[in-house]
Amino acid sequence: MAISYTLKKKDEKTRARAGIMHTNRGDVLTPVFMPVGTCATVKTISPDELKDLGAQIILSNTYHLYLRPGHDVVAEAGGLHCFMNWDRPILTDSGGFQVFSLAQLRKIKEDGVLFRSHLDGSLHHFTPEKVMEIEQALGADIAMAFDDCSPYPAEYKTVLDALERTTNWAKRCQEVHKDSTQALFGIVQGGLYPELRERSLREIVALDFPGIGIGGLSVGEPKPLMYEILDGMMPMMPEDKPRYLMGVGSPDCLVEGVARGVDMFDCVLPTRIARNGTVWVKEGKLVIRNAEYARDFRPIDSNCGCYACRNFSRAYIRHLLKAGEVLGIRLTTIHNLYFLTHLMADIRKSILDGTFSQFRYDFHLQWK
Amino acid sequence: MAISYTLKKKDEKTRARAGIMHTNRGDVLTPVFMPVGTCATVKTISPDELKDLGAQIILSNTYHLYLRPGHDVVAEAGGLHCFMNWDRPILTDSGGFQVFSLAQLRKIKEDGVLFRSHLDGSLHHFTPEKVMEIEQALGADIAMAFDDCSPYPAEYKTVLDALERTTNWAKRCQEVHKDSTQALFGIVQGGLYPELRERSLREIVALDFPGIGIGGLSVGEPKPLMYEILDGMMPMMPEDKPRYLMGVGSPDCLVEGVARGVDMFDCVLPTRIARNGTVWVKEGKLVIRNAEYARDFRPIDSNCGCYACRNFSRAYIRHLLKAGEVLGIRLTTIHNLYFLTHLMADIRKSILDGTFSQFRYDFHLQWK
Repeated sequence: MAISYTLKKKDEKTRARAGIMHTNRGDVLTPVFMPVGTCATVKTISPDELKDLGAQIILSNTYHLYLRPGHDVVAEAGGLHCFMNWDRPILTDSGGFQVFSLAQLRKIKEDGVLFRSHLDGSLHHFTPEKVMEIEQALGADIAMAFDDCSPYPAEYKTVLDALERTTNWAKRCQEVHKDSTQALFGIVQGGLYPELRERSLREIVALDFPGIGIGGLSVGEPKPLMYEILDGMMPMMPEDKPRYLMGVGSPDCLVEGVARGVDMFDCVLPTRIARNGTVWVKEGKLVIRNAEYARDFRPIDSNCGCYACRNFSRAYIRHLLKAGEVLGIRLTTIHNLYFLTHLMADIRKSILDGTFSQFRYDFHLQWK
Repeated sequence: MAISYTLKKKDEKTRARAGIMHTNRGDVLTPVFMPVGTCATVKTISPDELKDLGAQIILSNTYHLYLRPGHDVVAEAGGLHCFMNWDRPILTDSGGFQVFSLAQLRKIKEDGVLFRSHLDGSLHHFTPEKVMEIEQALGADIAMAFDDCSPYPAEYKTVLDALERTTNWAKRCQEVHKDSTQALFGIVQGGLYPELRERSLREIVALDFPGIGIGGLSVGEPKPLMYEILDGMMPMMPEDKPRYLMGVGSPDCLVEGVARGVDMFDCVLPTRIARNGTVWVKEGKLVIRNAEYARDFRPIDSNCGCYACRNFSRAYIRHLLKAGEVLGIRLTTIHNLYFLTHLMADIRKSILDGTFSQFRYDFHLQWK
């Protein structure tokens, strides 16, 4: 396994913890948020901008890269790092979530999933073995095992089947992946059923992956339900491995996830809402497209150190967004990702300082 | 007048010349290409990227900014430089070309032009006085006089009327602009009729503007016709003022324009073709969207020093363009603008070295 985890400090009142994930491409300070670069690019921004805003590690999507440009092209380029010119760590998801989201376009069997491309309708077959082959070709530092992610809501039997399949597939992934230098993380499923979560976690932990993904949350359920499931699972988590809550990126969920012992997060939320003209400030959302900002010549947040806030006004960014100018969505994207990376850095600092509970309290006091 | 021109060197075999245009925001080395920032942003790129690629001065469009966000908003921001965070010189066009391009949406009278907004169909009236008011509110270093630009082809009488109106409007612009610290350039019209060009030039030169725009070319006529018109006009141009060939930006036209004594150019061509997936190399166009580049891991041009060529492959840029990713059009835009700014720098150097004719010969030998 090419990664390891060092626990630096545990919070006394919560499960929050600060640590370091060591990779061949450098250390990642945790807890960490990973910006999503679906198609080998974090939408609208460059690798240099990603570094400037404090991204330590990014996520890229196996399903999308497999379809376009093709994992063979990426491999021929020398892997994803070379292809997209990003020399810090990368994690690739397994495509599980994507192909299960295709709804009418896919057919699940024990062997794998048959699905149609959302691009051209062509037929494809993902098995655990095939996904491992693709992820190894992409060459990320961390690959995720191929899992079966249940929707929300889902019947007990559906979730149970998906859980069993996920464990079975995790073993098959591990088998074909055993000689790889790439780290492979297992994924826990089990939907919103505490006993299924417990069982899935037990089975995945038993396989001794170097990191553990928590899948199947933030799929439409109310936040309190997600927190309950995390509360139930986290005491059973091994301490010496990073825990990655997949697909979660709302600032309040990051704070609450960390409080429950999560080390890693990813989500398209900051970049997606940015492209719709919404930015985060410490009070919550600010819809910068709105008319009220047409003559507001202050930065998005005068206390923010991001490129957008250091150089441009709300009025200018609003103008760019209204005019459909690309620089507008670049600036909102930079701001939102900077907001999250710095939120995580502040959270980490508070854990190390022993003031996380105060940080959490203050955060929620302001956040709307 | 807030600008002046110093002639540094005249080429011996052609009319090419190297000079310096002095402005309150620094010197501009001529001949120069001005990237176009229609809506107070050069499409897809940031002011820092613009500086990095060597842009000395940019153009912005009065018509577009008047409609959105409104010149009053820009003025309230402290002018265009503050609004868009660009501290180098800016030139604003007069909106003449834009409103005359509206075809069915506008009505020309001696007083001015009545037109409908392309955004919402609302009715507006541009007069020379109104345009001066807008351009002064925008606060560029150089404003262009409001002119009547004839289409191509156009009847003699149409072109004559437009010419007379242009001279008349130039006087009115000068009258209301006389106390401004902003420089005002007059514009020569006259279509493809040499005697009308001569008359227009004589009339505009007589008004003693600090710089002279050449309008109404590159409007659809064959390039040799444009060159003929330039050949006829340039001997009559005053030597101590910059000559600005409006709307011309094809590399071969830049070389030929310089050979005829032009100092300044602007055009949306480099940025527009970039967004369509076409880049320039010394041999001409390279349509990087094409399938042949899918596995081409070389940079666009291995001799180019732009950000795109220093960091990314043709295969990656093609992938980004095919996937509709913004970074793709950012990289092609940066490359094309870098190509032009460095072409102009090379041209200037060759004039100073006394090797412009050789440069021109070598350029055309390769350019397809």
